[in-house]
Amino acid sequence: MSDEIKIQLTTTPGNKPDSSNLSFGKYFTDHMFIMDYHIDKGWHDPRIVPYAPISLDPAAMVFHYGQAVFEGMKAYLTDSGKVLLFRPDKNMKRLNQSNDRLGIPEIDGDFVIQAIKTLIEIDKSWIPTEKGTSLYVRPFIIATEPCLGVRSSYTYQFIVILSPVGAYYSGGLEPVKINVESSYTRAVRGGIGYAKAAGNYAASIKAQEIAKKEGFSQVLWLDAIEKKYIEEVGSMNIFFKIGGTVITPEINGSILEGVTRDSVITLLKDWGVPVEERKISIEEIYEAYKQGQLEEVFGTGTAAVISPVGELHWNEHTMHVNEGKIGELSQKLYDTITGLQSGSLPDPRNWTVTF
Amino acid sequence: MSDEIKIQLTTTPGNKPDSSNLSFGKYFTDHMFIMDYHIDKGWHDPRIVPYAPISLDPAAMVFHYGQAVFEGMKAYLTDSGKVLLFRPDKNMKRLNQSNDRLGIPEIDGDFVIQAIKTLIEIDKSWIPTEKGTSLYVRPFIIATEPCLGVRSSYTYQFIVILSPVGAYYSGGLEPVKINVESSYTRAVRGGIGYAKAAGNYAASIKAQEIAKKEGFSQVLWLDAIEKKYIEEVGSMNIFFKIGGTVITPEINGSILEGVTRDSVITLLKDWGVPVEERKISIEEIYEAYKQGQLEEVFGTGTAAVISPVGELHWNEHTMHVNEGKIGELSQKLYDTITGLQSGSLPDPRNWTVTF
Ligand SMILES: Cc1ncc(COP(=O)(O)O)c(C=O)c1O
Ligand SMILES: Cc1ncc(COP(=O)(O)O)c(C=O)c1O
Repeated sequence: MSDEIKIQLTTTPGNKPDSSNLSFGKYFTDHMFIMDYHIDKGWHDPRIVPYAPISLDPAAMVFHYGQAVFEGMKAYLTDSGKVLLFRPDKNMKRLNQSNDRLGIPEIDGDFVIQAIKTLIEIDKSWIPTEKGTSLYVRPFIIATEPCLGVRSSYTYQFIVILSPVGAYYSGGLEPVKINVESSYTRAVRGGIGYAKAAGNYAASIKAQEIAKKEGFSQVLWLDAIEKKYIEEVGSMNIFFKIGGTVITPEINGSILEGVTRDSVITLLKDWGVPVEERKISIEEIYEAYKQGQLEEVFGTGTAAVISPVGELHWNEHTMHVNEGKIGELSQKLYDTITGLQSGSLPDPRNWTVTF
Repeated sequence: MSDEIKIQLTTTPGNKPDSSNLSFGKYFTDHMFIMDYHIDKGWHDPRIVPYAPISLDPAAMVFHYGQAVFEGMKAYLTDSGKVLLFRPDKNMKRLNQSNDRLGIPEIDGDFVIQAIKTLIEIDKSWIPTEKGTSLYVRPFIIATEPCLGVRSSYTYQFIVILSPVGAYYSGGLEPVKINVESSYTRAVRGGIGYAKAAGNYAASIKAQEIAKKEGFSQVLWLDAIEKKYIEEVGSMNIFFKIGGTVITPEINGSILEGVTRDSVITLLKDWGVPVEERKISIEEIYEAYKQGQLEEVFGTGTAAVISPVGELHWNEHTMHVNEGKIGELSQKLYDTITGLQSGSLPDPRNWTVTF
């Protein structure tokens, strides 16, 4: 992609939302980035235009066969007025892995990061600055060809929209209740679980809503084959601190390889905390709990960064983790990663991109 | 839904395609049916409008989390100028099963059939009449709320589009080559495999395209757990005639419950042909083949009706079925079902809806 990005600015800028009441993904900035793909032309016509509805043929393949992938990352404003992105190269790499699995053409990650920077620069005044807030960046790709044959689309749109988002936990970091899901499944080896594909989320909604009704904030998925091994939470990877060692499910083809997960593993290793990526069963966790060895449980993901788990329900068992309080390690990870993301801590690994 | 359907006719009717060269799902008629859903209002504002692009917020949930389901059926024109639909009540029932699994609100099947009839009546001149052609009816529902939180959308659109389609096999019924897929999987118990949900098709595209490149027309999916039991083909259920008995995989939560499948089972029972719905492994089929007992293999689905399989590849094994010719039973089923669908055979089971 060597095309230059055309820019058309809005003549009717929107009102910025109250930054103490943002919630997640509800407000959008004045502009968006779009580029088109055609099988004969490749990706072309990159442009920044006013945020507006898009128009698609009702036969567009995305509506029928779900050929759609996305990414999610956050931009922060530093005290000195610079913008920080956290490891965007990781998101681009994962986007291309998702593309490959879904039969969607590869994108040029460097070019897209450049486009995202340009877009954020234009809508910079939308980045909220209250503690815990940020600008959520949502790149996504949809199949646009009007055709009802089941195959890869010949045309796509790649779009980036921006949303000022609030702190995930309005009252500060707060342990959540999670239910281990025993009947529904999210993904299986050989499927699309490792891709950030629209279809994975559609499959998860029903179980999540049942769990919500029962008072849980999320479900913890088990593997679809033996219904035994831990996979991940709705939109987070999961970690268990057992007898001083931190354990997280290994990358197995059915869970998403989280950027936050990788950052946590790297930090723990740097800190000399033993960390294992391996299969871990729900029985093993329950056994550890009974022996008083289950010290901390936390989820990791772009939205919440670190989400301590205070209660884990599994069939008739309730595990109270760390007396429902935030664990020491969870807190330290949260402080470190948000410190890096907001530019208040030094960044020896060059994880952040500043502009 | 007691609302009346508002009708706005096009002022610029399109040109009808050459009915000897229709292919599948490429041309669309002059009108479409739309109705909206809002969590506070239910389904409302049913209307028939000129076929045209739809406009959606780029944050519309269908683009991100794939909350989308669809149906597919065919309308035929009889010699006396009437329109026939084949078992549309079955499609409505399945649509609501899909809705339930995906967290999409239920639709009123009777009302929708009425709407489809009205729409087809308006675009009746688009129904092709050459042998094997028909008007494909595609109802679908998409989540339209602009929100990036992962949950059920509060708003949806239900749309019906119509497409004149050609005979599935331009050269008449023709046996196809199918490859048994050994690495990729389509669905697993606890997932959304039994729903006609967009995400299932997105998951299937990659394996299908690899198979196409290797000269196969479709893949035959195995179960995701043991990679052993037959599931279904890309968009067909599958039947095996072994030593006089017809066997098809039982409904297990991960395959689609095809309308054609049900019709085939009913006809076979009526004809006194032994038919079994049960687990069947690929090894069992290969053993039967080696013993000269694998008499016929055929897929069933709305698009092709009956699709005889002439060659079945499984790893290094190639099974040549019935010397690559159409089996007697496959042909009889095809003739009977298409005869019922086009109104040229009597319909003792009241499967067709005429108007
Ligand atoms: C299914 C799923 N797992 C895990 C994660 C965590 O990934 P990341 O840390 O890259 O945000 C996400 C998304 O954010 C997700 O959607
Ligand atoms: C995955 C799948 N299996 C089976 C079928 C066959 O179903 P029906 O006979 O209702 O067309 C279809 C679709 O038509 C399908 O998409």
